[in-house]
Amino acid sequence: MDKPKLSVIKIGGNIIDNPDALEVFLNDFNSFEGLKILVHGGGAIASKISEQLGIEIKKVQGRRITDAKTLKLVTMVYAGLINNNIVALLQKKGCNSIGLTGADANSIQSVRRSPLPIDFGFVGDPDPKKVNKDFITNLLENNITPVFCAITHDGEGSLLNTNADTIAYTLASALSEFFKTTLYYCFEKEGVLLDLNDPESLIKTIDQNEFDKLKEKGDIADGMNPKLENSFNAISQGVSKVIILHAKNLLTGKGTILIN
Amino acid sequence: MDKPKLSVIKIGGNIIDNPDALEVFLNDFNSFEGLKILVHGGGAIASKISEQLGIEIKKVQGRRITDAKTLKLVTMVYAGLINNNIVALLQKKGCNSIGLTGADANSIQSVRRSPLPIDFGFVGDPDPKKVNKDFITNLLENNITPVFCAITHDGEGSLLNTNADTIAYTLASALSEFFKTTLYYCFEKEGVLLDLNDPESLIKTIDQNEFDKLKEKGDIADGMNPKLENSFNAISQGVSKVIILHAKNLLTGKGTILIN
Repeated sequence: MDKPKLSVIKIGGNIIDNPDALEVFLNDFNSFEGLKILVHGGGAIASKISEQLGIEIKKVQGRRITDAKTLKLVTMVYAGLINNNIVALLQKKGCNSIGLTGADANSIQSVRRSPLPIDFGFVGDPDPKKVNKDFITNLLENNITPVFCAITHDGEGSLLNTNADTIAYTLASALSEFFKTTLYYCFEKEGVLLDLNDPESLIKTIDQNEFDKLKEKGDIADGMNPKLENSFNAISQGVSKVIILHAKNLLTGKGTILIN
Repeated sequence: MDKPKLSVIKIGGNIIDNPDALEVFLNDFNSFEGLKILVHGGGAIASKISEQLGIEIKKVQGRRITDAKTLKLVTMVYAGLINNNIVALLQKKGCNSIGLTGADANSIQSVRRSPLPIDFGFVGDPDPKKVNKDFITNLLENNITPVFCAITHDGEGSLLNTNADTIAYTLASALSEFFKTTLYYCFEKEGVLLDLNDPESLIKTIDQNEFDKLKEKGDIADGMNPKLENSFNAISQGVSKVIILHAKNLLTGKGTILIN
């Protein structure tokens, strides 16, 4: 028997920060047919509240550190404010959703990142093998749409700040055992571009070989490499298709399609 | 066939604010046998963060108002910080729990309180008829323990600040259709006392008639009346038993037992 289809859809912080853009996106998400999971990032609102609370943003070698105070902040903002508001808005639209961190029903357990060479603090790397597939499948079968924020836990009592792209990839990979899974990375560009300033330079489809060649030549725009690496990891772990696209194109699916 | 037993256990803010007391309580909660639901209040940490964020506490006739900023605050603190930390701590103890607001899976829908005679702002009164009993029962049947914070929603896109005692009473009442339900109100006193300063003045059992008589005489200590009224409402709506007790006595059940 064919596996049922499932879409894992990730949206970034730029949409979260803009109520009008969020409203449009959630309408599209609600219209999006079939079983689906939403994964959302943080957004600038966390920095704003951080400032108000006098929590300093700590960086080592240009990368953010999640100390105990920052963990509290992201738990409040991502798992509290943003996640629950998205759920309330989706409920209004008739999409019966549920907000989740990885701690809820032990849905995503992570390993706290090694403090060497850099101690990133309370940051977790999730393991597709430690996804509670039965729980998530049960929700989907009951027409409840999971909405994940970028917080997981270590199973030892601590929540962990976790990259939202990685959460999306982890869920899509793990659930490929039961579903024919497509992973959508929605962001503020048309897809993978050869020239960041030229939407016409969109790469329509790309496979691992072509990606490796472009990466070697340095033709992939900054910041896209981790997303593409997560994407090809997902494909190598059973995800059928990854689409990197502008959030406004969710319903048409126009963007860069990554294939096996 | 007999209905399965269910315990709805509410803890107050004074335990939330004390990490050691919370740890002891969560150990007891974890040891507590049978199907169970935890409902937790807020605590002083909300006031502390409110101050740091420069959010003024607004009162009308001595009662707090939940304006838009305060709603954001309680969503961050109750549904974000406190709720998710309790879930992570319970996961560590081997209790597979899930953190919920009333918006999650539309589990508790409330009506925003009328702005007359006092506009309390974003405050909701839940309706036992609008509890998603199937969803909560499905969780319980899968050995997942719901942990509710004091936030619900109106189904129109807005979260609502909601009294935690009322949430506990609402859940217990609604779920009495499927379960033989006991409601536990855990707080910092031994139970219902005739003299607040004398634990020996504990009322061991009380029914509605006795409560009415004591209330008339003014013998019930301040602040206990709403809790007792919620409790007798619960009993009139099918809850088998309500126990008002000190949090430390959860496992022995020693306190004031309210009966039909």
